[in-house]
Amino acid sequence: MANIFGKYLTISLFGESHGQSVGAVLDGIPAGETIDWELVREAMARRAPGKNLLSTARKETDDFEIQSGYFKEHTTGTPLCFRICNVDQHSRDYDSLRHIMRPGHADFTGRVRYDGFNDYRGGGHFSGRLTAPLVFAGAIAAQLLERRGITIGVHIQQIGNIKDRQFCPMGEDAALLKSLRKKRLPLLEEDKAAPIENLITQTKGELDSVGGIIEGMVVGLPAGLGDPFFDSVESMLSHMFFSIPAVKGIEFGDGFLLSGMHGSEANDAMQYKEGKVITMSNHNGGILGGITNGMPLVFRLVIKPTPSIGRKQETIDLDTQENCSIEIKGRHDPCIVQRAVPVIEAVTAWTLLDMWMMANSRG
Amino acid sequence: MANIFGKYLTISLFGESHGQSVGAVLDGIPAGETIDWELVREAMARRAPGKNLLSTARKETDDFEIQSGYFKEHTTGTPLCFRICNVDQHSRDYDSLRHIMRPGHADFTGRVRYDGFNDYRGGGHFSGRLTAPLVFAGAIAAQLLERRGITIGVHIQQIGNIKDRQFCPMGEDAALLKSLRKKRLPLLEEDKAAPIENLITQTKGELDSVGGIIEGMVVGLPAGLGDPFFDSVESMLSHMFFSIPAVKGIEFGDGFLLSGMHGSEANDAMQYKEGKVITMSNHNGGILGGITNGMPLVFRLVIKPTPSIGRKQETIDLDTQENCSIEIKGRHDPCIVQRAVPVIEAVTAWTLLDMWMMANSRG
Amino acid sequence: MANIFGKYLTISLFGESHGQSVGAVLDGIPAGETIDWELVREAMARRAPGKNLLSTARKETDDFEIQSGYFKEHTTGTPLCFRICNVDQHSRDYDSLRHIMRPGHADFTGRVRYDGFNDYRGGGHFSGRLTAPLVFAGAIAAQLLERRGITIGVHIQQIGNIKDRQFCPMGEDAALLKSLRKKRLPLLEEDKAAPIENLITQTKGELDSVGGIIEGMVVGLPAGLGDPFFDSVESMLSHMFFSIPAVKGIEFGDGFLLSGMHGSEANDAMQYKEGKVITMSNHNGGILGGITNGMPLVFRLVIKPTPSIGRKQETIDLDTQENCSIEIKGRHDPCIVQRAVPVIEAVTAWTLLDMWMMANSRG
Amino acid sequence: MANIFGKYLTISLFGESHGQSVGAVLDGIPAGETIDWELVREAMARRAPGKNLLSTARKETDDFEIQSGYFKEHTTGTPLCFRICNVDQHSRDYDSLRHIMRPGHADFTGRVRYDGFNDYRGGGHFSGRLTAPLVFAGAIAAQLLERRGITIGVHIQQIGNIKDRQFCPMGEDAALLKSLRKKRLPLLEEDKAAPIENLITQTKGELDSVGGIIEGMVVGLPAGLGDPFFDSVESMLSHMFFSIPAVKGIEFGDGFLLSGMHGSEANDAMQYKEGKVITMSNHNGGILGGITNGMPLVFRLVIKPTPSIGRKQETIDLDTQENCSIEIKGRHDPCIVQRAVPVIEAVTAWTLLDMWMMANSRG
Repeated sequence: MANIFGKYLTISLFGESHGQSVGAVLDGIPAGETIDWELVREAMARRAPGKNLLSTARKETDDFEIQSGYFKEHTTGTPLCFRICNVDQHSRDYDSLRHIMRPGHADFTGRVRYDGFNDYRGGGHFSGRLTAPLVFAGAIAAQLLERRGITIGVHIQQIGNIKDRQFCPMGEDAALLKSLRKKRLPLLEEDKAAPIENLITQTKGELDSVGGIIEGMVVGLPAGLGDPFFDSVESMLSHMFFSIPAVKGIEFGDGFLLSGMHGSEANDAMQYKEGKVITMSNHNGGILGGITNGMPLVFRLVIKPTPSIGRKQETIDLDTQENCSIEIKGRHDPCIVQRAVPVIEAVTAWTLLDMWMMANSRG
Repeated sequence: MANIFGKYLTISLFGESHGQSVGAVLDGIPAGETIDWELVREAMARRAPGKNLLSTARKETDDFEIQSGYFKEHTTGTPLCFRICNVDQHSRDYDSLRHIMRPGHADFTGRVRYDGFNDYRGGGHFSGRLTAPLVFAGAIAAQLLERRGITIGVHIQQIGNIKDRQFCPMGEDAALLKSLRKKRLPLLEEDKAAPIENLITQTKGELDSVGGIIEGMVVGLPAGLGDPFFDSVESMLSHMFFSIPAVKGIEFGDGFLLSGMHGSEANDAMQYKEGKVITMSNHNGGILGGITNGMPLVFRLVIKPTPSIGRKQETIDLDTQENCSIEIKGRHDPCIVQRAVPVIEAVTAWTLLDMWMMANSRG
Repeated sequence: MANIFGKYLTISLFGESHGQSVGAVLDGIPAGETIDWELVREAMARRAPGKNLLSTARKETDDFEIQSGYFKEHTTGTPLCFRICNVDQHSRDYDSLRHIMRPGHADFTGRVRYDGFNDYRGGGHFSGRLTAPLVFAGAIAAQLLERRGITIGVHIQQIGNIKDRQFCPMGEDAALLKSLRKKRLPLLEEDKAAPIENLITQTKGELDSVGGIIEGMVVGLPAGLGDPFFDSVESMLSHMFFSIPAVKGIEFGDGFLLSGMHGSEANDAMQYKEGKVITMSNHNGGILGGITNGMPLVFRLVIKPTPSIGRKQETIDLDTQENCSIEIKGRHDPCIVQRAVPVIEAVTAWTLLDMWMMANSRG
Repeated sequence: MANIFGKYLTISLFGESHGQSVGAVLDGIPAGETIDWELVREAMARRAPGKNLLSTARKETDDFEIQSGYFKEHTTGTPLCFRICNVDQHSRDYDSLRHIMRPGHADFTGRVRYDGFNDYRGGGHFSGRLTAPLVFAGAIAAQLLERRGITIGVHIQQIGNIKDRQFCPMGEDAALLKSLRKKRLPLLEEDKAAPIENLITQTKGELDSVGGIIEGMVVGLPAGLGDPFFDSVESMLSHMFFSIPAVKGIEFGDGFLLSGMHGSEANDAMQYKEGKVITMSNHNGGILGGITNGMPLVFRLVIKPTPSIGRKQETIDLDTQENCSIEIKGRHDPCIVQRAVPVIEAVTAWTLLDMWMMANSRG
């Protein structure tokens, strides 16, 4: 049951980059919810490639077709299946991918895992294209969360060595969260956009790629979501995040900086404020003992540099069983951090809606 | 199904710090395996408190009692249940924990989550004592993995700002891995032991605590374990790791450093070496596309400073519904990083054995 | 996670009778298997309506479209998604189904379950049409089982009060199993075909419907599949069978007749025969302690009479909140027992392949 | 994950007949529920052997010890673990069970399933003793259901060929349900007790055993529990029922009799009665489309004759690899139907509480 995620709200993902379609079956969405499909399209457009010079020139048509689960402008409560057809991908010749393994990609591990039978065209099931259905699912979940008072914002916190400021962990940035979705580069500091664009353009010119860090914040979460063992909020989110290609690290609250702190610094003092329990700092990122405490949820994750680069790299040829070199041709993203932002936003929404429903079942 | 983890090999954890016992039901252990109980006891002793001045003076008797699943010196294949009785904990008065919330602990979130009915004595179900059954389970899994050629090593990579060297990611440290289990402080560089002990002692004197980073490495893993969506090796391990109290971040391979690297640096070139496929560097920590590639698996995680500190802290009193302050008395760990090492080692073993079995089922 | 079934091999079912399509995501199919699509089409044709006077005159075009998971004539090991488009169903007026509840159908329970938002056209998600994807999935599983030496046969054992003979439980009918798939009415005794056809025709003329019993047998199963608690072979099969609309009872081996037997009759004596362990009778239907014993697996299940009948029935109108009567117009099956045969055959195959894989993972 | 059952409310069962203890971890019980332990003890006493001549003379001390999850007279919401120690079982010599396979038992299938490493003493993990923890769990669930207005009653409907009357499916027997728990032989017709006792006594004298049928009814269930695919109420209950040793068939409502009925007889007409929707008959046993309709839930299941009989039987000796005969000595139940009644009652409660919680999570 590897391709299924969730406890009460589940997603069954399918598809390969060059197959008929990618999509998913979404099970457990409450009945009677109206979906704003335009918001779903906007989220998918933010992920889609081919929009500008910062990403690959490939065009992906992310038009989705609902198969089931939506009737008379409402969710039915039965599984919502959708597909996104793959188009215009017949022209490429991917035969070399069958036997020449691209470094940093899953070409080799995929072959071992699937005994050589996996679809290798365009990365197949390992393709970043599989994140399109995740964005679709998350864009639905985000609407349901929004109706329950919960908002998610995600921004580029770093690309290469250029850093955006971090979210104020006490929630002062709450009003900005949704506006991030409108930006070409979702940054808190506008003046970082130009240097980042320059860096990406320059990296592209060097036939290379660059990585970065993404930061997310969720406001409006009630206290009490999650479980100590084994379904902590951090456990569930990280399980989902590490399914996203290129994510190699994740931290909550002050994360790795906590290693150099004392308990007297890291503990978040508590107080009553207007009848509500709050903490006076948020080093723990809104989660204690695996459970939300009602403060903003804050996390950061690292996106490794896109492995597809034009430079010559050393690798192996499975046909000849010899070492060889490879120069990856074609249109590739010099940086996928900005395209990963809506993906992270989406899977955060999907996972938190599941946890919200879990909390609900205890009544 | 929150307190159960695993796909084919599952652990159902139970217990509270001051209840009758803590323990677990382990389901899916292959039949016919002999367990060296002395190795299990050694792993548990490394986790147990009260051994020296670096940890709490509390003594925990971690004697386990097998309830089922072991017969004639072999696993039966049916569920193996064990319990570890809680002893000598009647004398403490934990009543203040009922209404005065300790900052940095799960006292408040636990109350919200369980509608005020959770056992608050000694942290109850949130207590670090719940890691004792995890160590037991992992010590069994480690033996099974060892028989399949897989070895796990974990060391303190940092406490406060004192750093041990990192593992050589290409596996040069493979021979050292098991020896780490014999050390009072599991470090690669012996000369870091004294400064770390001094730091902990000093922190204790200041009624404070300190955090750190733990690094793990696994050698001997076959290529092909894990899945792209959603059960990547990173997903499964991080799900489990974030169940461990105090873990707030996790990274694989070069982790967060990948944000500042180029693709040409981060990609691990591949080659045939004596008929075997290897990579010439290991920035990806042995995992590509969520699947092991046969290179050493490398990860790091951050342990926050112990929240129990003697210093005065501001918090709330749920009885009076007013703000108040708290000074936590009693015997507490100024640092739990060294005690977390065998826990991380154990849950790594348990999770990887599950993934090993998953890979096996595909035949 | 209601719409997902299976442990290692899972099916995520979707669709409504009058939505865009019905289908499923099949996860966990081993990589490298070639599928004979013609056999899949044949199985689906046996289930499809509109073939002759015994079933509804509706035509369902069960052409399937593979979306993913099949590449170069082999399964890839990644999820196999397919859809079966719904066609020519726009003309019917189903509005009365919105408020007038058909007795014996899920109209009322579906409304309560989904808060009135379910798609009621043609039964929606409750429609027998949802069994088309199950047949597709099972027709794949049956091919994989066949390659592993396992064959499934299902026949009509009773319609109304006309009975076919039962399978010889010791396996004498093994050679006949596959031939049942070729028959218009899958019966062991050919001379029962005419009376059954007459009964169905007569019942149709009386604007009524009739139920029956289906019997299945599986030969070639190895001993050792299944688990005592809670995934006995009987548990897994019955879980799946009771998902099929109209199934109201299930028995294994001698089933309900065992209530009147003595232990000395019901126990199956054992013996070695040519080095193999067999039983000398098969009252237990090939399963002891929830686990296969290597003898033929035998089961029987009851299909209730189709609830859609032309006769006047008393029911309720949710719009007026008053009692009313209903006469169901249109083309309906006077008997679905013969159409249920390939469905039962299919889900038996799917479930047993899952259990076969489960057994494999223990290695 | 075979030894775990449930979706939101899970039971992890452990134990062998002659191991240290049997028991379970119960996860997902809502926090804040008070348990009447006396009612739990009563339920367990009804299952326990050694009470009279009708069952085995063995005494089982079913004293349970709570390990976790209950604090200050309330459930904590964290896992509730309990164990029931095995006592006084050291004296028996079970060595012959290692190599001489008892017909009708799981001796052979268990050996194959567990590669010969299972504990064979007293049936090991396959023993009926494993139903003691199920009764414990169900006795808790029954109390929670009772507080939500749901009551379960189970009676002996048949032993050998002596039949008790069936429940009136419209619920006229609702007031009798709890009184059945007080009876030595839970029958609706008192005058069947003597003939049944005679039959059992006579069968015992003949060194034989006898089977029977158990009928259950649940009143007070709200409409809307369950799912069409794959977690119908029938699916979930039958999954659990077929885990109980000796159950070989199950039917809901009119069950197998529906095979001979017409739709016009089997359909339950609907009407409004005092503002509530009811059906005018209950041939479907309270379930349509897998979902409760608010009418009494009715089911029947068959218990095969106890396989342990004193008569000489033919079987195999795995040591000599030759055929042999066996006469089972010792104290065995000539009939376990009456002891199975509280087990069926218990697992019905546990499963329905899970489904009740599932329905709750959709909010």
